[in-house]
Amino acid sequence: MAPPGIGDRVEGIHAVAAALEAGRVRRLTVERGRVDSLAAIVDQAESRGVPVAVVDDVRASAVTDAPQGVVAECRPIAPVSLDWAVAAGDPPSLVILDHLEDPRNVGAIARSAVAAGIAAIVVAGRRTAPLGATAFKAAAGALETLVIAEVSSIANAVADLRAMGVWVVALDAGSDRSIFGLDLLTEPVALLLGAEGHGVSRLARERADVVASIPLVGPMESLNASVAAALAMYEVARVRGWA
Amino acid sequence: MAPPGIGDRVEGIHAVAAALEAGRVRRLTVERGRVDSLAAIVDQAESRGVPVAVVDDVRASAVTDAPQGVVAECRPIAPVSLDWAVAAGDPPSLVILDHLEDPRNVGAIARSAVAAGIAAIVVAGRRTAPLGATAFKAAAGALETLVIAEVSSIANAVADLRAMGVWVVALDAGSDRSIFGLDLLTEPVALLLGAEGHGVSRLARERADVVASIPLVGPMESLNASVAAALAMYEVARVRGWA
Repeated sequence: MAPPGIGDRVEGIHAVAAALEAGRVRRLTVERGRVDSLAAIVDQAESRGVPVAVVDDVRASAVTDAPQGVVAECRPIAPVSLDWAVAAGDPPSLVILDHLEDPRNVGAIARSAVAAGIAAIVVAGRRTAPLGATAFKAAAGALETLVIAEVSSIANAVADLRAMGVWVVALDAGSDRSIFGLDLLTEPVALLLGAEGHGVSRLARERADVVASIPLVGPMESLNASVAAALAMYEVARVRGWA
Repeated sequence: MAPPGIGDRVEGIHAVAAALEAGRVRRLTVERGRVDSLAAIVDQAESRGVPVAVVDDVRASAVTDAPQGVVAECRPIAPVSLDWAVAAGDPPSLVILDHLEDPRNVGAIARSAVAAGIAAIVVAGRRTAPLGATAFKAAAGALETLVIAEVSSIANAVADLRAMGVWVVALDAGSDRSIFGLDLLTEPVALLLGAEGHGVSRLARERADVVASIPLVGPMESLNASVAAALAMYEVARVRGWA
């Protein structure tokens, strides 16, 4: 059985509006009681010739827990190869998600990535796809903008990126080295992010050029994974003079 | 009827361990099937003379959706007055939550606040208390460490803080002024944070000294509320030379 396509199902107002804007929506379903508040989305769909179905309750067919009255079936996003993801930024800027499977965190990281000017996101394709409807909803449109690369092994992707001249910086709460002010962030760079609790996997971390952390000023053991990711991505933007 | 006390119910491993450490737990309930993985918490409770009940399923009485097999009834945290919250930091550093009611965001902000070295959090007490079990779980212990002030009006608290010599910086995605590099963050400062979507309320914003934003490099309209908060709080830490 083929794996589900990336973004083939999008729910929630912001995420659906962005998928419509990207021209990916094949069919829109909206809830009768919410048609007024969804008028802009329905108009946009109709102007693009997208069929619109009106139902009593979209939650019956929804995947996320609060679809906000609107569900879209979409043409999936085609993931690109790693070299395309590298070329998407000038200088290249990527985030690599290593076993980060909470779709809310994945969506939140995508949103922060676009805000910080990061060009591409790298995910492992063989595992349970983390880029489902919940991630798209949390991303609020960001996953329509980011270039998405799918790889079969994160550890191999780290090696491949280094061979392409990209510096890989693993974020690890256990590192004493602060990511703040790290000069090499001006160079082609990929931030390697691990799952909350587990962190970056051993082999991928060993292959990274640098292991760094967000400094903790007060008595906390760690930051939320998507917060740490945002601080690191904004550091890239700052060191590059973008923010 | 008296409002529920702050933190009178704590669920989840990290949050309960922190409440035990703070000496607030009156009674612990753990799930039979998880006693092995909760051994450290049960030991800690017993060494402090806290009664421990073992039940088949804590979810029957839990408030959060994933209590991780452990629920604690606690002595509530007594909120302090605004002048105490100001005095808690040197120089003073506060975050004010203006109508931010998503408890996951509130908990995440508390966690980032402690990590960034912020001393105190200010919440409006008359509204539905945002500091329930879900916020405590998301805070992963941070709400045991932060000084918590409760006020009856956020807008009045802004005026009161200014009268005490504290600069109030409202975070508003619509502002063109970047919070990055803002010199006055070295002074006694309170960051005023609004709810996702709604932002800071008009009167409170008008009373703030400065309205600033996290700059958006790429095509996103806004950041997640807890991400924006973390970036702003870490900016305080950076400008002060803490991180």
